[in-house]
Amino acid sequence: MKIAVDAMGGDFAPEQIVLGAIAAAKQYDCEVVLVGDENKVKAELNKSPHWQDLKISIYHASDEIGMAEHPGAAVRRKKDASIVVATRLVKDGTCDAVLSAGSTGAAVASALFGLGRIKGIDRPTIATPMPTVNGVTLLLDSGANIDSKPQHLVQSALMGSIYAEYVFGIKSPRVGLLNIGEESTKGNEQALATYPLLQEMKTINFQGNAEGRDIPRGTFDVVVCDGFVGNVVLKFAEGLAKTIMKLIKETIKGGGWLAKAGAVLLVPTFKKLAKKMDYAEYGGAPLLGVNGCYIICHGSSNAKAIRSAIGVANEYVKNNVLEHISDSIAKEEILNNDSDGK
Amino acid sequence: MKIAVDAMGGDFAPEQIVLGAIAAAKQYDCEVVLVGDENKVKAELNKSPHWQDLKISIYHASDEIGMAEHPGAAVRRKKDASIVVATRLVKDGTCDAVLSAGSTGAAVASALFGLGRIKGIDRPTIATPMPTVNGVTLLLDSGANIDSKPQHLVQSALMGSIYAEYVFGIKSPRVGLLNIGEESTKGNEQALATYPLLQEMKTINFQGNAEGRDIPRGTFDVVVCDGFVGNVVLKFAEGLAKTIMKLIKETIKGGGWLAKAGAVLLVPTFKKLAKKMDYAEYGGAPLLGVNGCYIICHGSSNAKAIRSAIGVANEYVKNNVLEHISDSIAKEEILNNDSDGK
Repeated sequence: MKIAVDAMGGDFAPEQIVLGAIAAAKQYDCEVVLVGDENKVKAELNKSPHWQDLKISIYHASDEIGMAEHPGAAVRRKKDASIVVATRLVKDGTCDAVLSAGSTGAAVASALFGLGRIKGIDRPTIATPMPTVNGVTLLLDSGANIDSKPQHLVQSALMGSIYAEYVFGIKSPRVGLLNIGEESTKGNEQALATYPLLQEMKTINFQGNAEGRDIPRGTFDVVVCDGFVGNVVLKFAEGLAKTIMKLIKETIKGGGWLAKAGAVLLVPTFKKLAKKMDYAEYGGAPLLGVNGCYIICHGSSNAKAIRSAIGVANEYVKNNVLEHISDSIAKEEILNNDSDGK
Repeated sequence: MKIAVDAMGGDFAPEQIVLGAIAAAKQYDCEVVLVGDENKVKAELNKSPHWQDLKISIYHASDEIGMAEHPGAAVRRKKDASIVVATRLVKDGTCDAVLSAGSTGAAVASALFGLGRIKGIDRPTIATPMPTVNGVTLLLDSGANIDSKPQHLVQSALMGSIYAEYVFGIKSPRVGLLNIGEESTKGNEQALATYPLLQEMKTINFQGNAEGRDIPRGTFDVVVCDGFVGNVVLKFAEGLAKTIMKLIKETIKGGGWLAKAGAVLLVPTFKKLAKKMDYAEYGGAPLLGVNGCYIICHGSSNAKAIRSAIGVANEYVKNNVLEHISDSIAKEEILNNDSDGK
């Protein structure tokens, strides 16, 4: 298996991307193809002795897409940008997956232009693993689609369920619809119209409405929502986690030597906790619905996050997620009568 | 000033409601009227010696509305329910404010039927103070209105700004529109249509789009959104805060005696932190847009939360929030051309 990694995308590219690739090549049974400026990538690789013994190669791409560029226009114009080239490697069968910590918009645009959508899927969706008290909940869509139609949420539910089953190894994942009450009669127009469709589905284990609190509680394995709501929740969670950590530090700082001593004793505890809440542990977020394995990483990904994400891509491909999605679509009548969508 | 408190509403009513009323009567310059079953309320009051020396009275209401009842139907049918009676006391001028920790739906229905809306406001909105790194951000709407029109968000912005100024004492509060990107071109149809209207407003200090992370960061004083999104975020925040606390406790428990010793030394630190993140400190959430001061408290409110909420009601009335809202509405052309709304 070969995984194309956009070496130029991300706040800490290419250094952390290359380090992550090296760690992944050691840990997983796959070849990592670093796509980007050959000289820069090689310079980073050469900082690690014996990297040539690992299954790592470089595929030169002379250009890159910045965070401030318009995604669609940049992808069309810059044929040699690392993300565009990486996507092409999957399209032509050279690689099995693509992974990027660069502009999410550019990744989505590259995937759509380069790979297209799975038959039966109108819009691709980003599925973000959110840490919970006892594992993760997959939240989708978390920002690719807004003003979604009920049919789009149904497609998300199907793909999220397959992903949770075959990548996280959860048997019959519990799927919830994000809403403002538990009862089926609660919610906005979108949720009210989506609920009965989810109930009709044969290939998912729909468990009803999920409320905001159910995400950190881990009541569901997959939570489906409009990308507007998902994106707000995702960014809120990141902000809140950082704020709480900052408050803890400040309170300890202002708490005198007893508090400082206590904090020192608790360092291993906090480290364990931080690990549990750390997004980097769970790798990237798959862009589901495009014709290929496409993993989107957080812009601030470090080597650990990149390594985890390569592990995720590995599971995705090894377990034939794409095939399972297509199989499930074929089984769902409500996705095949073509009355809605787009 | 007289504040009518629904003594029968809330998970810990009437005990904690009565204790909160006693604490408030000691602290604030107002009279508290406990509305509910006279015998039950008196029995609670009698547990506190010398309560008769305080400005506290009882107003008998023979009925109450349960959490499971349909709010609108229950309010119409149960004329002697505590929340209905408390609302009537404000309507007829006996009291200046009403406060309840009972069913939010019943409170909203009582307020709408009993007090009506402020002229120029189509839908009332619940404004919840969210703890931030350096104070609070007012999030509205947090659950009263879903599928809001842009005009409704404009009305929320105006009312939230007035409330932040006159109750929290923030001069020229920074108002943000909750969205999925900073740029004015980002967002769903609702946000895109609302942005230019907020820009047109004369009485608020609109600072552009707020992202999810801006809420805990305290970048804005007032954040406006649809009630669906606000409710999801609010419940997510409550769930996440609880989850983090639970994880800290569990990790300390499993961390051996060093971690336990550290935790003991950090007790004062955690207490300070918990106080900062504690919703009870910030009192209830006002239902803005109805013709009267209406404070909604969390169902699990303890005496401290009730006391804080009575303090909030006190500030609301003393600073003429209702009048300021009406004054601002009169100054806003976009709220007076009657082309939109409802």
